[in-house]
Amino acid sequence: MKSDTHKVLHPIAGRPMLEHLLSSAAELAPARQVVVAGHGRDQLEKALGARATIAVQDPQHGTAHAVQMAQDALADFDGDVLVLYGDVPFVTAETMRSMIARLHADDAPKVVVLGFAPDDALAYGRVIADGDAIVKMVEFKDATEVERTTKLCNSGLLAARSGDLFALLARVGNDNAQGEYYLPDIVNIALADGDHAAVVVTTDPDEVAGINSRAELADAERRWQDRRRAQAMADGATLIAPETVWFSWDTQIGRDVLIEPNVVFGPGVTVADYVTIHAFSHLEGATVGSKAQLGPYARLRPGADVRAKAKIGNFVEIKKAVIGEGAKVNHLSYVGDAEVGAGANLGAGTITCNYDGYFKYKTVIGERAFIGSNSALIAPVRIGKDAIVAAGSAVSRDVGDGELRLVRAEQMVKPGWADRFHDAMKKKKAEKQG
Amino acid sequence: MKSDTHKVLHPIAGRPMLEHLLSSAAELAPARQVVVAGHGRDQLEKALGARATIAVQDPQHGTAHAVQMAQDALADFDGDVLVLYGDVPFVTAETMRSMIARLHADDAPKVVVLGFAPDDALAYGRVIADGDAIVKMVEFKDATEVERTTKLCNSGLLAARSGDLFALLARVGNDNAQGEYYLPDIVNIALADGDHAAVVVTTDPDEVAGINSRAELADAERRWQDRRRAQAMADGATLIAPETVWFSWDTQIGRDVLIEPNVVFGPGVTVADYVTIHAFSHLEGATVGSKAQLGPYARLRPGADVRAKAKIGNFVEIKKAVIGEGAKVNHLSYVGDAEVGAGANLGAGTITCNYDGYFKYKTVIGERAFIGSNSALIAPVRIGKDAIVAAGSAVSRDVGDGELRLVRAEQMVKPGWADRFHDAMKKKKAEKQG
Amino acid sequence: MKSDTHKVLHPIAGRPMLEHLLSSAAELAPARQVVVAGHGRDQLEKALGARATIAVQDPQHGTAHAVQMAQDALADFDGDVLVLYGDVPFVTAETMRSMIARLHADDAPKVVVLGFAPDDALAYGRVIADGDAIVKMVEFKDATEVERTTKLCNSGLLAARSGDLFALLARVGNDNAQGEYYLPDIVNIALADGDHAAVVVTTDPDEVAGINSRAELADAERRWQDRRRAQAMADGATLIAPETVWFSWDTQIGRDVLIEPNVVFGPGVTVADYVTIHAFSHLEGATVGSKAQLGPYARLRPGADVRAKAKIGNFVEIKKAVIGEGAKVNHLSYVGDAEVGAGANLGAGTITCNYDGYFKYKTVIGERAFIGSNSALIAPVRIGKDAIVAAGSAVSRDVGDGELRLVRAEQMVKPGWADRFHDAMKKKKAEKQG
Repeated sequence: MKSDTHKVLHPIAGRPMLEHLLSSAAELAPARQVVVAGHGRDQLEKALGARATIAVQDPQHGTAHAVQMAQDALADFDGDVLVLYGDVPFVTAETMRSMIARLHADDAPKVVVLGFAPDDALAYGRVIADGDAIVKMVEFKDATEVERTTKLCNSGLLAARSGDLFALLARVGNDNAQGEYYLPDIVNIALADGDHAAVVVTTDPDEVAGINSRAELADAERRWQDRRRAQAMADGATLIAPETVWFSWDTQIGRDVLIEPNVVFGPGVTVADYVTIHAFSHLEGATVGSKAQLGPYARLRPGADVRAKAKIGNFVEIKKAVIGEGAKVNHLSYVGDAEVGAGANLGAGTITCNYDGYFKYKTVIGERAFIGSNSALIAPVRIGKDAIVAAGSAVSRDVGDGELRLVRAEQMVKPGWADRFHDAMKKKKAEKQG
Repeated sequence: MKSDTHKVLHPIAGRPMLEHLLSSAAELAPARQVVVAGHGRDQLEKALGARATIAVQDPQHGTAHAVQMAQDALADFDGDVLVLYGDVPFVTAETMRSMIARLHADDAPKVVVLGFAPDDALAYGRVIADGDAIVKMVEFKDATEVERTTKLCNSGLLAARSGDLFALLARVGNDNAQGEYYLPDIVNIALADGDHAAVVVTTDPDEVAGINSRAELADAERRWQDRRRAQAMADGATLIAPETVWFSWDTQIGRDVLIEPNVVFGPGVTVADYVTIHAFSHLEGATVGSKAQLGPYARLRPGADVRAKAKIGNFVEIKKAVIGEGAKVNHLSYVGDAEVGAGANLGAGTITCNYDGYFKYKTVIGERAFIGSNSALIAPVRIGKDAIVAAGSAVSRDVGDGELRLVRAEQMVKPGWADRFHDAMKKKKAEKQG
Repeated sequence: MKSDTHKVLHPIAGRPMLEHLLSSAAELAPARQVVVAGHGRDQLEKALGARATIAVQDPQHGTAHAVQMAQDALADFDGDVLVLYGDVPFVTAETMRSMIARLHADDAPKVVVLGFAPDDALAYGRVIADGDAIVKMVEFKDATEVERTTKLCNSGLLAARSGDLFALLARVGNDNAQGEYYLPDIVNIALADGDHAAVVVTTDPDEVAGINSRAELADAERRWQDRRRAQAMADGATLIAPETVWFSWDTQIGRDVLIEPNVVFGPGVTVADYVTIHAFSHLEGATVGSKAQLGPYARLRPGADVRAKAKIGNFVEIKKAVIGEGAKVNHLSYVGDAEVGAGANLGAGTITCNYDGYFKYKTVIGERAFIGSNSALIAPVRIGKDAIVAAGSAVSRDVGDGELRLVRAEQMVKPGWADRFHDAMKKKKAEKQG
């Protein structure tokens, strides 16, 4: 990846790929989650907190060796173990469940392997199987011509009972060119013991696609987005150009929502029914009420709480602010750390001056208040209900209910001045150019 | 569609899909247009006005029954009837004409069916034909294996003389699993009578694609846009990234127009020759003169009339305003309900304060006037020719030709104040954090 | 192209297509570059300056005739000549080198032709060859059925020694339906003389794709962008939606740069490591330092020099200005012709008033200065280090280090005025509507 960021922490849909995987695994309510890391322990700890135990593999002697590193963290654990890969983040909980279920079904296999059948099997290791009974696991380079014709490939993912798993891992050797311990060998060891091993096959080869470059990261993002876009449309949202709408992993969109081209959702957005989001809008950490209208060029930042039927227009930024029902902020405004009452109208160029370089202060605007264009509201400040702030005012003191606040300096008139200025400047310009 | 909006009123390229269809049909100058609706009569009436008669089908007993519902509206009519579907909106007038023409040609068929030959015939009803003479119409589920091998499918669209049509419809039965009256049955009835029926085959299967979900709506939008983009390029516009330009059904674009990536055209836009539209621009209801330059991030709203060689820059919104020849509004401005003279220059942050919460007022700016940055023009107000408004002014009274208007309050200087403030605040911040 | 602009001057990735070609050819350090033009000499001269000699072909009698027009410009030249096409701009220097190399290898061919093997050979002229020895050049229309089965096509590009080239060209006849002189005929003439001709085959048929319409121009742009996007990702940048990032021919992007969807790079942009560029940003002629953060909706114009860790937020335009290390311009601002010191903070709506309609003036802001929201800095003006400008101020005089500048007019309070206004206006509105 050519990156300082650990590969599995690169985000897809605004969420580290490892979190996608852990989140799916969490649906199975596992007793614990152990993450084996070759490097970047600090980054992983910071990202995961208490949600997973981190086991370090240093030095790195292959995939079987990696899984062995989890043994201490599972010392007091007796149960099913699912071996997943942080860079194979989109395995579904359903697939995981079917692997665990297979472990306890029929012929009681010692190991269950997740197989997949890609269009082009390339150089993937093959799973030679009879029905779902594995006959042999074989690396592509060691496979015979006949074995290579099988399309069933090894995803690398597997499930086993903890006791079986670590017992088998202890017997894996490293007698190969790289001197590494390979995980699939545990299957062949079990088979040699006369035990059973079974393959569960995913119907969606994309599910086990690994991410090893930024190009593959972008591909994974696109596949995720395409699924989410289709879901949003199936749920009753109109996306005029679905390929230009980017959702976050946790975006919630209501029914009869219209989304124009080029809308970006960061994390933490909830959009109610009947909302229209015009083109070039950017939302994160925001709640949007029913029948609200946003954009084009609306930017909602974390804490934006746009209530029903409110209108956020072009080149408007809302941050940590309630915009009351039916209120309008139509043009070129910044509203931060504020409460705007229902039905209030903020004119073009309204700016809440919420920061003095050290602390943030709050602006409260009453219901139906009218803030004239190009006004600066210098927080902390409170504008009353039905109050009016005249255009072009810098308001630093509270305005009472129904009060007019007019901040206007004397207008100086200099007749003929502009004409004389034009003459002088044209002359100066001519001199410079001449 | 999971929508409160009637399916046929969902828009494509900014226009309800039904309107696309009625508009194509209107090219044949029909005596009248009848729309049969199962529900949503109010929505349809509101959308269509006097352009079509609405006939209600309630309850709904199948497609033949639906067409019968139009009989009253056509009681005094004797002529050709074309049966179209509101959710199959892109049948061309040319195809419609060829159906009508076939009705009057050769063997005088009683019914003309529009057939299509998709790549994958799926479960569509089949048209069994000998040349263009229909032998039998058959539903997929009733078709024999041999019949299913035919690739000629029934689009559902058909043409017949009004007398024939309603006479045949009256004879359709509902002796089937669903107890419905099916329109294609009229063909089989005519054939049983010894009459002829003919199939006209469209060369473009996309033409008869139905829209039954928001995903199909998005597909139809994309196909429409792709055709329009290709046409714009063929007509002499450069689209750097055609797939990121969204036209409206009525967009008019001149020659040697350059359109950067990510431009959205709403309805009612006309762009003259040699115009450059930079990225992230959004236009609706706007006229743009020759050699004008827009964007990036230009928003033209309805009534924007940008004259030749004018320049609208970034984060600028123009609404119901003439921007005179060569005039410039380059940055962060809102110009609404205004007339800006030729060669005028509006500085960054210029805002016309056109609204007092109840009424809109007009701003008139003379030729070559110069509006300093961050000025608020409080309408109604008139700025003279060659006049200058100093930066940072809120102007509420008219400015004469060649006059300077300077609105500036006293600048208070407090030496050392900021230093003391910084010290105090740093201390306060440390206390809070400590 | 339906354009007033010469076809070869239409840009791809912000650079005329001819420049792409001349630039690749320049990697071979040619003694001179001659451009043969049928029309548009003035446009070409203006675009190319001294970099190429322009030879005019008027009237135009075919491709062989066109190359002959370069003879005068090469009268004193004795060496290898490479014949390229201005509308086939993406032939690589590597391919050009292999053509020249072949001219001096093995059987000393008189002519080396660049061949290509497209998926669909269509109606391209064919190269009948035995190994790399050309047996015959044949136009598609003159080709036999057998000859047409060959997939090796003639790109039109060729290489020859100058003496050979012009001697052969002089012998080409125009005994064909169009009465034109065709360049490939020189190969057949050489072969008839018993001389050798060789074909060099490009492995990438896209390399010799010609551009004859705006649709093909858009295709070429897309192919160029796709290659560049893949390169950016391979070099260590994350592109969340690569297909929505448009690079310029000279864009330079560092490692661990994150680019959100919908970012446009104009010419002349350099982005250092660890930079984040949020969605809807537009950069041209800008330098961005390490760990800087841009956008969403950041516009950097030529001369923007954003230093390390600086932050440019939404709806902000920077032009010809240094934004010092760690400085912040977060919202709705225009900063032009300015120097902003390290750690300074410009509030929302800050505007540098840098233009009086005739000249541009400079704004200098000291380190750690704090400019309150909605302020206008009327250049020329200098704000000292650690100084504070109060929100809503129009500052036209210098502010000293650590000084507070407060420009604020009296706030007039009119209790009850707004309530009376609302009553009056509601009445008026009711009257108008009634």
